[in-house]
Amino acid sequence: MEIREAADADWAQIWPFFRGIVAAGETFTYPRDIGEEAARAMWMKRPPGRTFVAVDERGTVLGTGESHPNQAGPGSHVANGSFMVDPAHGGRGVGRALAEHVIEACRADGYRAMQFNAVVETNTHAVRLWQRVGFDILATVPGAFHHADGRYVGLHVMYRAL
Amino acid sequence: MEIREAADADWAQIWPFFRGIVAAGETFTYPRDIGEEAARAMWMKRPPGRTFVAVDERGTVLGTGESHPNQAGPGSHVANGSFMVDPAHGGRGVGRALAEHVIEACRADGYRAMQFNAVVETNTHAVRLWQRVGFDILATVPGAFHHADGRYVGLHVMYRAL
Repeated sequence: MEIREAADADWAQIWPFFRGIVAAGETFTYPRDIGEEAARAMWMKRPPGRTFVAVDERGTVLGTGESHPNQAGPGSHVANGSFMVDPAHGGRGVGRALAEHVIEACRADGYRAMQFNAVVETNTHAVRLWQRVGFDILATVPGAFHHADGRYVGLHVMYRAL
Repeated sequence: MEIREAADADWAQIWPFFRGIVAAGETFTYPRDIGEEAARAMWMKRPPGRTFVAVDERGTVLGTGESHPNQAGPGSHVANGSFMVDPAHGGRGVGRALAEHVIEACRADGYRAMQFNAVVETNTHAVRLWQRVGFDILATVPGAFHHADGRYVGLHVMYRAL
């Protein structure tokens, strides 16, 4: 597995699993019926944002991550990031490798910390992964995520210094 | 004082104090040198976002506030909002009146809660105001705001149910 900057041509491999993950309505605060152009514009970042892909030796995109300033101006020294792993390639450490790569990239880019605003509390796989790579739960916003199963569940604000 | 939906023509009165408040670099996570068109596009919301102004009997804009979904899709039932009062008209209850009006508007719009992501902890006037109208500090993101005085100070995440 290699992790590298995403190229425009990678989008065609990202979109099928991106669409499926968002449509499931369990983990992302994006419109479940998001259109491809809106998704591409949001995910394929322009500087200072960056987008990464994890690819195998055959060039198959296994997962993707992105980083960008969490706030503008006087808040732009804290990075935000998002990550998706193709469910067809789960359980192989792709998420962890992407996370560690993006953390290092954010440190190299000069950010002082990373913050996630909206980690769904029932997405325990992701919560544990972020904790393993050094993130703490600062707060849980009660009921802030309307899960596909009908429940209103919390969104964790997670943080780690760099 | 009357509080009403902002009209396009109100922007000309908002921009001078908006620019001054942002340039001071003490309270907002916007670029301190933000240009007028970027500011207008950000502040003068399109639906489902809404923008309000507080005006006196002569039509002078005393302050402004806006509301919008804090997250998209499964997070869109929580509102975010921002507020600015012209420093020339401070101390007259404009901020409090705007806050109460926007809270009621958000409730009427069907939001289930309101959340602020970035209340500068040294902006004690604002912090106290939000607490008085029912917001709690859920967390403080350490050092997330680079204050104009050179210090890195915390950003409060504040919340209230509707």
